[in-house]
Amino acid sequence: MASILLRTMEGFFSRLQTPVPTVRTFSMSLTSNQVASPVWNLGRLNHIAIAVQDLEKSKAFYKNVLGAQVGEMASIPEHGVSVVFVNLGNTKMELLHPLGNDSPIAGFLQKNKAGGMHHICIEVDNINAAMMDLKEKKIRILSEEPKIGAHGKPVIFLHPNDCGGVLVELEQA
Amino acid sequence: MASILLRTMEGFFSRLQTPVPTVRTFSMSLTSNQVASPVWNLGRLNHIAIAVQDLEKSKAFYKNVLGAQVGEMASIPEHGVSVVFVNLGNTKMELLHPLGNDSPIAGFLQKNKAGGMHHICIEVDNINAAMMDLKEKKIRILSEEPKIGAHGKPVIFLHPNDCGGVLVELEQA
Repeated sequence: MASILLRTMEGFFSRLQTPVPTVRTFSMSLTSNQVASPVWNLGRLNHIAIAVQDLEKSKAFYKNVLGAQVGEMASIPEHGVSVVFVNLGNTKMELLHPLGNDSPIAGFLQKNKAGGMHHICIEVDNINAAMMDLKEKKIRILSEEPKIGAHGKPVIFLHPNDCGGVLVELEQA
Repeated sequence: MASILLRTMEGFFSRLQTPVPTVRTFSMSLTSNQVASPVWNLGRLNHIAIAVQDLEKSKAFYKNVLGAQVGEMASIPEHGVSVVFVNLGNTKMELLHPLGNDSPIAGFLQKNKAGGMHHICIEVDNINAAMMDLKEKKIRILSEEPKIGAHGKPVIFLHPNDCGGVLVELEQA
């Protein structure tokens, strides 16, 4: 998130140095049916999630065939998944396999027998502001409030039909 | 690719400083039916490719709804796609729309009416060595030779059925 902080600070300092009232100009450009939302910024890609039928086989593929840095399998019962992280340096992949009877990825694997790309997760600097803003923009969110995600941070999921067929997770950085 | 170069150089210097013959130890650990392939290393995630039904609408979603840095549409007739790049700081998304009659993503969009995640692209430091090694490991590659990809660099695509349902592109860094 350093780049976002840097951009924010650059904006802050440029406002200090210029006599142009940037914030007021922005407010004046709003049309009558728009409401100024709390500011939030999209950050880096946190991960790509891949649903897999066989976690050990997929782990071996990324580790032994592609030569990636691959972690150990971890169970996350509260999210109904077992997960293996694949480190790609600038971001990571999460290999997901259903755990328990109510796994959120069981249905996906029934439809996609070979497995496949399940969702992408992008970081945001203010998950509550993002949620409020996206609701105003008529993007459907799959929970009433942010939930604590697999990394222990608040997350929301956006409806794939509002995101060009892609299930998008936003995670508090 | 700086991190890979750095790792490679670290390995080089550590070999210089240690009396342990690392390379010979590696060769001795091969079993009789294995052949030492040229060395190649997996690098960073270059991009996620998203096939979209409406490029302007998707561009507006990432730019105006999510607030991402989004480039201008570019046509790449030789690859049968129009593309818009979405910069996420650490990596990028490529929004792809079919161009011409033989677009490689037309069939995907017929099956996935809303659009969706089409492939991931990971960088490698030696595409020819990667191709040779993966062939030996019985991974099917979708072309006989590397092709010049959308970024002007050699690429290969791995068969999704050999990669857990994920279409994987490898690109020379």
